[in-house]
Amino acid sequence: MNHQRTYSRRTFLTAASLAGLAAAQAALHPLQAQTPDAPALPEDPTKVPGALPSAYGQRSAFEQAQRLAGSFRSLTPLQELHGIVTPASLHFERHHNGVPVIDPTRHRLLIHGLVERPMIFTMDELKRFPAVSRLAFIECSGNSAGEWREPRGQTVQETHGLMSTSEWTGVVLATVLREVGMRPDATWMLAEGADAAAMTRSIPLAPVLEEALLCYAQNGGALRPEQGYPLRLLIPGWEGNACIKWLRRLKLGKAPSMTREETSHYTDLMPDGTARQFTFVMEAKSVITSPSGGQEIRPGFVEIRGLAWSGEGRVTQVEVSTDGGQTWQRAHLQEPVLSKCSTQFRFPWQWKGQAAVLQSRCTDETGYVQPSRQALVAVRGVNSVYHYNAIQSWKVSRDGTVQNVHV
Amino acid sequence: MNHQRTYSRRTFLTAASLAGLAAAQAALHPLQAQTPDAPALPEDPTKVPGALPSAYGQRSAFEQAQRLAGSFRSLTPLQELHGIVTPASLHFERHHNGVPVIDPTRHRLLIHGLVERPMIFTMDELKRFPAVSRLAFIECSGNSAGEWREPRGQTVQETHGLMSTSEWTGVVLATVLREVGMRPDATWMLAEGADAAAMTRSIPLAPVLEEALLCYAQNGGALRPEQGYPLRLLIPGWEGNACIKWLRRLKLGKAPSMTREETSHYTDLMPDGTARQFTFVMEAKSVITSPSGGQEIRPGFVEIRGLAWSGEGRVTQVEVSTDGGQTWQRAHLQEPVLSKCSTQFRFPWQWKGQAAVLQSRCTDETGYVQPSRQALVAVRGVNSVYHYNAIQSWKVSRDGTVQNVHV
Repeated sequence: MNHQRTYSRRTFLTAASLAGLAAAQAALHPLQAQTPDAPALPEDPTKVPGALPSAYGQRSAFEQAQRLAGSFRSLTPLQELHGIVTPASLHFERHHNGVPVIDPTRHRLLIHGLVERPMIFTMDELKRFPAVSRLAFIECSGNSAGEWREPRGQTVQETHGLMSTSEWTGVVLATVLREVGMRPDATWMLAEGADAAAMTRSIPLAPVLEEALLCYAQNGGALRPEQGYPLRLLIPGWEGNACIKWLRRLKLGKAPSMTREETSHYTDLMPDGTARQFTFVMEAKSVITSPSGGQEIRPGFVEIRGLAWSGEGRVTQVEVSTDGGQTWQRAHLQEPVLSKCSTQFRFPWQWKGQAAVLQSRCTDETGYVQPSRQALVAVRGVNSVYHYNAIQSWKVSRDGTVQNVHV
Repeated sequence: MNHQRTYSRRTFLTAASLAGLAAAQAALHPLQAQTPDAPALPEDPTKVPGALPSAYGQRSAFEQAQRLAGSFRSLTPLQELHGIVTPASLHFERHHNGVPVIDPTRHRLLIHGLVERPMIFTMDELKRFPAVSRLAFIECSGNSAGEWREPRGQTVQETHGLMSTSEWTGVVLATVLREVGMRPDATWMLAEGADAAAMTRSIPLAPVLEEALLCYAQNGGALRPEQGYPLRLLIPGWEGNACIKWLRRLKLGKAPSMTREETSHYTDLMPDGTARQFTFVMEAKSVITSPSGGQEIRPGFVEIRGLAWSGEGRVTQVEVSTDGGQTWQRAHLQEPVLSKCSTQFRFPWQWKGQAAVLQSRCTDETGYVQPSRQALVAVRGVNSVYHYNAIQSWKVSRDGTVQNVHV
């Protein structure tokens, strides 16, 4: 075989990325004008030898799903994804002063305070402990924060894109705290990040000891920089902000430290003017990802697809309504259904061209049912930023367009 | 905050990739000479604003795990991965004339032969059917083929790297075949790829109808080019070669088509000179990924970690031996344990500096036990290429080095 004449995907991709998306699209459609650097797509791929194996694969240049980046955050394009795993490159981001660059060989974790033996760990030392892997969602407590007063998000990426799911691997917190000799009077832990915000949060020890991970891997590979490389705290089911990224210090004590991020931020302002503090758990929530805001459907069979999750455990049921909540039917839950992990649901629907309002409502293993917007607002008011988990409504118009509404 | 002074990760990565790995490594260590384009790693990442959010994330430049690329194949670096999910960029490759470039808007699937209504489907049409997602391994039937006669692979990537695991999404074969009106006399299906090998295999319909997927997504994102973008056949538990990639045609018939890839290749030459044909299922197998060939351990606690899988269903037990198979102990199986998916196992070990031979042996839900090398060779001889699933032995020398041995 003559590989000198091989169509080189690598050449193509390099040319495409250098010339930018517009040029790439021109290159991808042979009927359009060609740039000299971008070879045409073969009319018949069976007639042209393909690309040779590569050390590290890339997605097809035809695939352009991307995070929507804002100020210190970016949103997962849930409407373009499948299954429960979020590609690491599309996991949402939330940071308070940017993503630091950290050399893992120089990174250290200091554990001190109410311990018998204050210790400093290298990454190699942490990886030597017994490891645990699990699939779990992480949701920013500010996910859907724009929905408290009005239907602000145009797409499910904008309304719910601060939630992503990965397989995480690390060492259980209790394992490491046994090594340093946690003292019996230690009840809280200050966790500190090595980012330019030096993010700090106070974590009560009892509920997280056996479940929190000092996490160094994500979806099989190393933890990604945006997710806390080389080390993060992962507390399955708890708000993302508590899962301190770029973790460099744990200080055990007898009380919370009342840091900036748990006093002026990350509290929930209630209707009576008081603020709920340390509301760590992300309660049960679900959303239809397809059809969703900004999409367009055609009459006939439409599979309603979405995700449900609960910080309290397993999702036990998801119901779907196509009439704005007047009637509900059970959706099919896609296996595996795992604790504190997103669960995919599916519901077959025949759309006959009528106006419709699509909703999903999930129940978790504690019996908790995702509230309607009215029920949530009745308790919480509209002055909160965090922990919005109301039922989402997507209005389908007769022309097939879908938009975010509050009903 | 002044972002003009921000350390730009994107600038850094671009500079690093252009200058190559050597320059990148120099850039990463501030004590070494700097190139003008590569900013130094900050001494203290908390003192420098980090990178802004990005549309599509990349792994840290410090992470260099890669596929080992050979002729029309590349191997997953199992020794560097965690959990069960394989990063899509590191999923093994096996193709017979390269990876084609396919425009998904132009790709079509033709279904014909013994059907009431021959039809051609676009990708959009296939995605409109009810979808299914599942985590499943794919193993090339030639995985570990080098081990039939001698311990050839230096690392677990070389011995077992033609096995990877992903969450796959697609439409169940039976769903689409109902649409075209599969005739009752159809018992086999020819599946054809759109690559330059025009890979074709014959698939018996009865065992795969309800489980095979016409698959378009992998780990949440679109199927990767090396895995068959935009469409592949996925038959959980069956040899990878039968899971035709870049799928463009299904022809239903009454008998296998006896293509090149099921007559001259992908058969198992037995000691009596006959060849077993259509041995699709990948039988139960396991391997210790850490410690494994080429690694080095130190005295003290060592967690033995590995993967087990079976094309027949769930893994029910993995046993580990540290004395070359004289004694065995049960390993812990990491949840979730899923049918036809890899399962992670862990076994705590105290290494006191003695020579040792590490082995793992798995049992699946049918009761089948992974054979020793002697037992496998007694039945199969040493003239086969495919379907080698014997127990793997890693010898630990007193200096802590680990190597592939046959015991």
